[in-house]
Amino acid sequence: MKIGILGYGNLGKGVECAIKQNPDCSLVAVFTRRDPSSVKLLTDGVPVVKVDDILSYKDKIDVLIICGGSATDLPKQTPEYAKYFNVIDSFDTHAKIPEHFANVDSSAKASGKTALISAGWDPGMFSLARLYSNAILPNGKDYTFWGKGVSQGHSDAIRRISGVKNAKQYTIPVESALDSVRNGENPELTTRQKHTRECFVVLEDGATESDKVRVEKEIKEMPNYFADYDTTVNFISEEELLKNHSGIPHGGFVFRTGKTGWNKEFDNVIEYSLKLDSNPAFTSSVIVAYARAVFRMNKEGMTGCKTVFDVPPAYLTTMSDEEIRAHLL
Amino acid sequence: MKIGILGYGNLGKGVECAIKQNPDCSLVAVFTRRDPSSVKLLTDGVPVVKVDDILSYKDKIDVLIICGGSATDLPKQTPEYAKYFNVIDSFDTHAKIPEHFANVDSSAKASGKTALISAGWDPGMFSLARLYSNAILPNGKDYTFWGKGVSQGHSDAIRRISGVKNAKQYTIPVESALDSVRNGENPELTTRQKHTRECFVVLEDGATESDKVRVEKEIKEMPNYFADYDTTVNFISEEELLKNHSGIPHGGFVFRTGKTGWNKEFDNVIEYSLKLDSNPAFTSSVIVAYARAVFRMNKEGMTGCKTVFDVPPAYLTTMSDEEIRAHLL
Repeated sequence: MKIGILGYGNLGKGVECAIKQNPDCSLVAVFTRRDPSSVKLLTDGVPVVKVDDILSYKDKIDVLIICGGSATDLPKQTPEYAKYFNVIDSFDTHAKIPEHFANVDSSAKASGKTALISAGWDPGMFSLARLYSNAILPNGKDYTFWGKGVSQGHSDAIRRISGVKNAKQYTIPVESALDSVRNGENPELTTRQKHTRECFVVLEDGATESDKVRVEKEIKEMPNYFADYDTTVNFISEEELLKNHSGIPHGGFVFRTGKTGWNKEFDNVIEYSLKLDSNPAFTSSVIVAYARAVFRMNKEGMTGCKTVFDVPPAYLTTMSDEEIRAHLL
Repeated sequence: MKIGILGYGNLGKGVECAIKQNPDCSLVAVFTRRDPSSVKLLTDGVPVVKVDDILSYKDKIDVLIICGGSATDLPKQTPEYAKYFNVIDSFDTHAKIPEHFANVDSSAKASGKTALISAGWDPGMFSLARLYSNAILPNGKDYTFWGKGVSQGHSDAIRRISGVKNAKQYTIPVESALDSVRNGENPELTTRQKHTRECFVVLEDGATESDKVRVEKEIKEMPNYFADYDTTVNFISEEELLKNHSGIPHGGFVFRTGKTGWNKEFDNVIEYSLKLDSNPAFTSSVIVAYARAVFRMNKEGMTGCKTVFDVPPAYLTTMSDEEIRAHLL
């Protein structure tokens, strides 16, 4: 399977690494909006191409993996490139998925290409966990917890506060809440009871004690981001931030608790969880598996926009149907 | 969806209960090898029919759920009834799945019906957890733990020992092994290190102390079943067995630990787990969700034998594609 990558940030680099682990995949080119000479790939011998020239690769790529951001890049890029390529993205603005789906679908249907949006782990594997468990246990309750992991949005929000030089924010699920759900207690949990937030903040040089007090207060009272949570703020040096907090770990838990039995007398707990050293490296590993499915669906004439819900699991693997029935069923 | 149940044991009864929780499903008839007048259903107004008359229901049933045993019933029943009905079973003899698949497939292809074998949780949901995580993390290691739960096979094995009146055996995953896997330590685990076995045994009236000693020794040294495990044997009264050990709970854990990153520098742990008050009630809830998919696949002309690997997750739910994209993705 010949793959092109559009956008070479953390996610694009993650896709490049995932391709290395999947022998049926080869990287054909990386497309960028930057000056190609300024982009250095990990893979030898693969060209970096200005995005303006992407159409010259129209017949050289089986699936184009679009690694832009959900806010402004993907809503334009995915429908646009679905005119020419089988495409896949990791669009993660949950509220705008129906709109994005419609745009990509009409574009891919017109071109006879196959597109898949919102691949990754949330949306993605967590969505699948929710769908399967809802189908099995129609009488039940869903819980999703995120972390422990780095929230880029919350880290960015702290960095925008005056006097802050750098920051990293961890979202942490509350252990007692996890245990309560796991024990089938079906708790009603407030935002505050589900997650805590831990911040590591580097102040600008020359910051005073009163700067610390002000920054901590601004963080803890920030609406939407922190005000509804128990938040811990740690002031540290830039060296310490780089040394101990430069990774991008993440993960989380999806539960469904539900009843079976004639009188709903039996309790059941379904739990799916992820613990990831690198959020973008895992997300891109999911994307590459789904790129395989996109290619196969296109060969079988299944065109238009798809999501993880539409893909038969067997399409994700290089193993034959006989092998998976013999070894994984 | 009009459902027929063939076989009214624990699993058939579980299917009946699951149908009650799924408003799109209705139970048309239960077919039995016993005298129908001796079978009392939970549902009012549904006929119990001698299995010899099943073909008179040929056009009255959308999916026939076959609730026989894997050892001798299903290898005959599923290929046979796939000639006349869309069918689904929970065949769980892992080693014989390829053979069973081939028999059911040729039968269902000839009749233009759709069949799905090995629905449930293992095989079934655990198989899916293995397939998804293997596709995402091609470099990794799989672990499956079962329990805490009742093993019917092991309970039966104890009951066959002379002097034993009744018995229940629990399979229990070793907590420290679970923790080691969960922490990404990639341990090599022997059979003994993964599970312990706990037995509750009722002896025949008049049993002596030396009977206890002999039975305990016979259990602990029984090849295949107990010899490779740390086993605890508890002698209790029949009353205590009925009071505290009459349920059929089960569950388990499927892990895949694997590496991502250019130099495989990142660790990842994917965990899927189930905790079930009633094994047959949960298994049949999975079966009913997959019966929905079987019916839909047949309407779309997808005939022959399928497994959970072939089913797009969206086919399991009554929600529309628009709804699942808006609410579950």
